[in-house]
Amino acid sequence: MRVGIVGLGLIGGSLGLALRRLRHSIDVTGVAKRSEGAAAAIERGAVNRASTDLNDLSDCDIVVIATPIDEIAGVIERLAPAVSPGTLITDVASVKQPVVRWAQRLPNPSRFLGGHPVAGKTQSGLEESDAGIFDQEPWIFTPSEGQDVRPFDTWLEVVRAIGATPTFMRADVHDQQMAFLSHLAFAISSAFAETVQKHADPTLGGPGYRGLVRLAGGDPAMYEAIARENRNAMVDAIDRFDAVLHRYRQRIGSGSKVKELFGGAVHAAR
Amino acid sequence: MRVGIVGLGLIGGSLGLALRRLRHSIDVTGVAKRSEGAAAAIERGAVNRASTDLNDLSDCDIVVIATPIDEIAGVIERLAPAVSPGTLITDVASVKQPVVRWAQRLPNPSRFLGGHPVAGKTQSGLEESDAGIFDQEPWIFTPSEGQDVRPFDTWLEVVRAIGATPTFMRADVHDQQMAFLSHLAFAISSAFAETVQKHADPTLGGPGYRGLVRLAGGDPAMYEAIARENRNAMVDAIDRFDAVLHRYRQRIGSGSKVKELFGGAVHAAR
Repeated sequence: MRVGIVGLGLIGGSLGLALRRLRHSIDVTGVAKRSEGAAAAIERGAVNRASTDLNDLSDCDIVVIATPIDEIAGVIERLAPAVSPGTLITDVASVKQPVVRWAQRLPNPSRFLGGHPVAGKTQSGLEESDAGIFDQEPWIFTPSEGQDVRPFDTWLEVVRAIGATPTFMRADVHDQQMAFLSHLAFAISSAFAETVQKHADPTLGGPGYRGLVRLAGGDPAMYEAIARENRNAMVDAIDRFDAVLHRYRQRIGSGSKVKELFGGAVHAAR
Repeated sequence: MRVGIVGLGLIGGSLGLALRRLRHSIDVTGVAKRSEGAAAAIERGAVNRASTDLNDLSDCDIVVIATPIDEIAGVIERLAPAVSPGTLITDVASVKQPVVRWAQRLPNPSRFLGGHPVAGKTQSGLEESDAGIFDQEPWIFTPSEGQDVRPFDTWLEVVRAIGATPTFMRADVHDQQMAFLSHLAFAISSAFAETVQKHADPTLGGPGYRGLVRLAGGDPAMYEAIARENRNAMVDAIDRFDAVLHRYRQRIGSGSKVKELFGGAVHAAR
């Protein structure tokens, strides 16, 4: 099996490392935006070969688009003429509805399956890449209505082999789920970091503080792109969180049933 | 030096372990509420000897109260007749104004100095105790106005020896700081965990989700007691956070300057 990876950052680089570490090692070709990125990926052992030219992916069985989400539409457009009509294409973006829509422009949309490994680190970039980040995490796929996913069976096997659990859902359901589980989380973390910076001394913070601000250290450009592509679901998630927090505020202020409040949260956190 | 520790949970147990691990090992006597707790602390090596009787602390140079905050007033009352008038007393609670007020009932209030090691784990209890939790963390002391802290110099040396950094501030300033850095943090984490449980599938969450809900797994009784003792500052912190989050919501909803929003948070988180 020959796998192409477009975009050699944290996820693309980690995927390459994970694929090459498998018992039946998989041949990986990487495409980076700049030649420095291509060289660094080879140096790190994340790919067998790398370039800046999508045409070098012409003989791949599957191509994984792992660029920032705002570059995906352009990559899809340039990828179509560069690969053979039978090549499978997938991606790793954390918002799926726009990606699935962009993929409709492919000559053969049925060869595309949207994907999202729910994995990551706060810090991005190839230098943070790590073969282990997919282990024991979900890898969500969002087939179009009625799409036959059998052509992707081998890819699903690979996903399982690197430790992830393939899960299927509709793209809109995925985006709603991630609005709560991931996109709301980085909005909260960012707003908390900003609040503390305004009103307190962060150097007095302990492990609880540090755990809560970690996500705020992520890439602002990535967060902006996600917030743009999943805007409505994200605003809805913030509103629903705000309603819950408001109840915490009222109960704490009145001293009423505060233990039950936190007891329910313990249950939810486990 | 002989140190007494009242309350052998996560912090009391960790402190005992840390003191006994020092090069000039410190003799530690523990007092637990139940004999099982006393036996477990000896078994774990957190204390040299342990009982359920405060009178066994009569020959200690300093007694550290490490019980839940709602037991501190009672311990202070029973401790006074059990120790010699020269014995120093401190505590480790994360809200300081009520503790400092309760300590005024001591026959010699100048022998009391409120303290708060900004350290911890989500899970509480002796079985989670760990000598390393104080390392590179602040340990805040809240002297009364005009209090001479020199009698506590040896204790400050010990605090430094186990890796913490003694820091001094007024009790009300401490409580305000912790309302943001710690108490707001567990309210947010709890409200987030509850929101996700209501509206999404937590098993689809990745490392970002797990990092944000970790604090919600803490002890509801402890959170309730803290919320009661630091109520006003905590409500104020929630309101200020809510104002910041509201700006995130507006900006994300309108798509205006979202990158700058997250860029500021990155700065705040570092």
